[in-house]
Amino acid sequence: MTDIISAITTLPPRYPSAREQPTVDTWQEAPHSRWAFAHVHEFVPTTPIAAHSEPRHPIVSLDALIVTDLQARLDAAFTDAFVVVRDGSVVAEYYRAGFGRHDQHLLMSVSKSICGIAVAALIDEGLIDASMPVVEYLPELIGSAYQSATIQHVLDMTVAVAYDEDYTNPDSEVQQQDRVAGWRSMREGDPADTYAFLRTLRSTGAPGERFQYCSADTDVLAWLIEAVTGRRYADIVAERVWQRLGCTHDASITVDRAGFTFANGGISCTARDLARIGELMLAGGMLNGERIVSSAWVAHTLAGGDPRLARGSAITKTHANASYRNQWWSTGNDRCNVYAVGIYGQYVWLDPQTNTVIVKLSSCPEPVTVAWNDTHAALFRDVCEALER
Amino acid sequence: MTDIISAITTLPPRYPSAREQPTVDTWQEAPHSRWAFAHVHEFVPTTPIAAHSEPRHPIVSLDALIVTDLQARLDAAFTDAFVVVRDGSVVAEYYRAGFGRHDQHLLMSVSKSICGIAVAALIDEGLIDASMPVVEYLPELIGSAYQSATIQHVLDMTVAVAYDEDYTNPDSEVQQQDRVAGWRSMREGDPADTYAFLRTLRSTGAPGERFQYCSADTDVLAWLIEAVTGRRYADIVAERVWQRLGCTHDASITVDRAGFTFANGGISCTARDLARIGELMLAGGMLNGERIVSSAWVAHTLAGGDPRLARGSAITKTHANASYRNQWWSTGNDRCNVYAVGIYGQYVWLDPQTNTVIVKLSSCPEPVTVAWNDTHAALFRDVCEALER
Repeated sequence: MTDIISAITTLPPRYPSAREQPTVDTWQEAPHSRWAFAHVHEFVPTTPIAAHSEPRHPIVSLDALIVTDLQARLDAAFTDAFVVVRDGSVVAEYYRAGFGRHDQHLLMSVSKSICGIAVAALIDEGLIDASMPVVEYLPELIGSAYQSATIQHVLDMTVAVAYDEDYTNPDSEVQQQDRVAGWRSMREGDPADTYAFLRTLRSTGAPGERFQYCSADTDVLAWLIEAVTGRRYADIVAERVWQRLGCTHDASITVDRAGFTFANGGISCTARDLARIGELMLAGGMLNGERIVSSAWVAHTLAGGDPRLARGSAITKTHANASYRNQWWSTGNDRCNVYAVGIYGQYVWLDPQTNTVIVKLSSCPEPVTVAWNDTHAALFRDVCEALER
Repeated sequence: MTDIISAITTLPPRYPSAREQPTVDTWQEAPHSRWAFAHVHEFVPTTPIAAHSEPRHPIVSLDALIVTDLQARLDAAFTDAFVVVRDGSVVAEYYRAGFGRHDQHLLMSVSKSICGIAVAALIDEGLIDASMPVVEYLPELIGSAYQSATIQHVLDMTVAVAYDEDYTNPDSEVQQQDRVAGWRSMREGDPADTYAFLRTLRSTGAPGERFQYCSADTDVLAWLIEAVTGRRYADIVAERVWQRLGCTHDASITVDRAGFTFANGGISCTARDLARIGELMLAGGMLNGERIVSSAWVAHTLAGGDPRLARGSAITKTHANASYRNQWWSTGNDRCNVYAVGIYGQYVWLDPQTNTVIVKLSSCPEPVTVAWNDTHAALFRDVCEALER
């Protein structure tokens, strides 16, 4: 494992003066300890000792939305948090008992859309040219599925990767990646870390021809961000996105054995902070007095990708003209809804017509089904239509 | 591993309605997911995406202490944070660059003294009788080193356990316990979790005859707390200590595979919150208008243990009359200093004569040496004497 880690020259130092990377077996030793004693959560799972008691009752503030049986529908859809922000103000909010405004919830693949924004910020700074081949920045990926892809291909998920995204199949690449990320127990033969895993992925054809939802693509983008900045992905998201958005609470992201952050699904944050991500998009890339991404990039993203590339995708059973661009989904529907989505019911839903962001964080029992896609699409439509009445 | 975990009947549920324990391989599945999506940090290491930028400059507010070269001495002693609280007010404070007032620092064995307070709170509530045998509450420990020990023996570390506390020896029990706790990589043959580990420990003689610093003792106390409350240790510390003290920031504690919290060394918190622990002791068990532990228990603890039991301990090279009682150290010196200490330089130092608490959080290069013990004792004495001038 040590050999593989040290071979990756683009891995940024975990703390400014680090000459080698601390591991679970060395973090207690000097000089790592100076940083690690304030970051033990990077090596060992932790639980809080709360300074304030948990909310025992749900927060229900839904009166502004005239939607029949709204609370019952939220309960039935395993909602942990639901926030509706219109024109920058919270107009409705719901939190189940035991989960509150200050609690972090795992975003799953909504994390991908945050990565898209971070890439866009670095494009604006001139650090990334999306039309360039990935391997110009990451020569480590020569020979992998990413050898012929441009960064835009990766952003739009048109790479063509031998990658099975079946969340329930233990032999799929997505489950292997879970194991490598520390989300499940490792198996004999698994790569030591995410960097090594990404290099094992093989091509199935030419990039640019077909949309293929592939979680690994986002981790390639995070690695790219590390390569061009020399900094860790979490720090770049903190500086370029979280702090500029004026988020009030820290977010967090899971890390693997090498210290690589699980960009494709590992962010947790509060519902209200997540809503700012949506507000940023609707506001054209400027929020809180800060230009975070260019208005051109936002317009390009909100316009959606090419629906022809996504034909046959499961999502087209819910949104016939669905597409994917810059790590965001587009419904292609009459309301021009664009969204970020994660398995088990995580959503940031954008409704440009009413200038509204809907955040829903959930614990649905299945990772993804057409029925849940339909349920959420109908719920969000009803909410947006209610706002127009 | 599953068999061992399910055999422990006293393991409290990780969330209120849990019928079985989530593991790293099941946390994503319903019904665990409802709780786990807000607690992914219990299964996977994480790193923050900070909402506020890090302090780049040190905080130095030491003018109230006329101690020669104080800042240089703090720097030379690898200080990350240093807080002096007298009569309830912060009179001096120092934080190195990159570590601030809102940052958590690992406490190592200072965590033990917090456990002592939690046990005391439950003694006051009548849930624990310290004169009773441990196995009255934890029959799982019949056959182990704890079979003949009372709870007071465990609190005072006079159990007589075949336990090598050599932090630098990979074959020692303390390193094996680190591995079981997730602080190092597991080795073939290691017990699956801390509950199983504690049951492997064997007796070396009769309890009550000799002080033997044994980290595992504190985890037995945490397990006891779980057994008598049916709740997790972290939740009891939160309710009975952290929230009653008026701590302003969450603390955190590391968890092993089974969800057991590493009571003997795994707490991280801010320096100022930790100072409240010391204030509570000097105030006789009542702080912030709340009675947290009885004044009798505090007086008994501050009076120190029997120095004869500790003869030959390494600490007697620094404090000839040192002793240990209720998870706190007593110097037995002329100032009646009592303290909590953790390896690599973590301290809560109590000076009753000046009603002062000194907190020092550090990253010294060695876990423990006589030289570092002497350095810290001299530093704290100079600070306390300066306060008397």
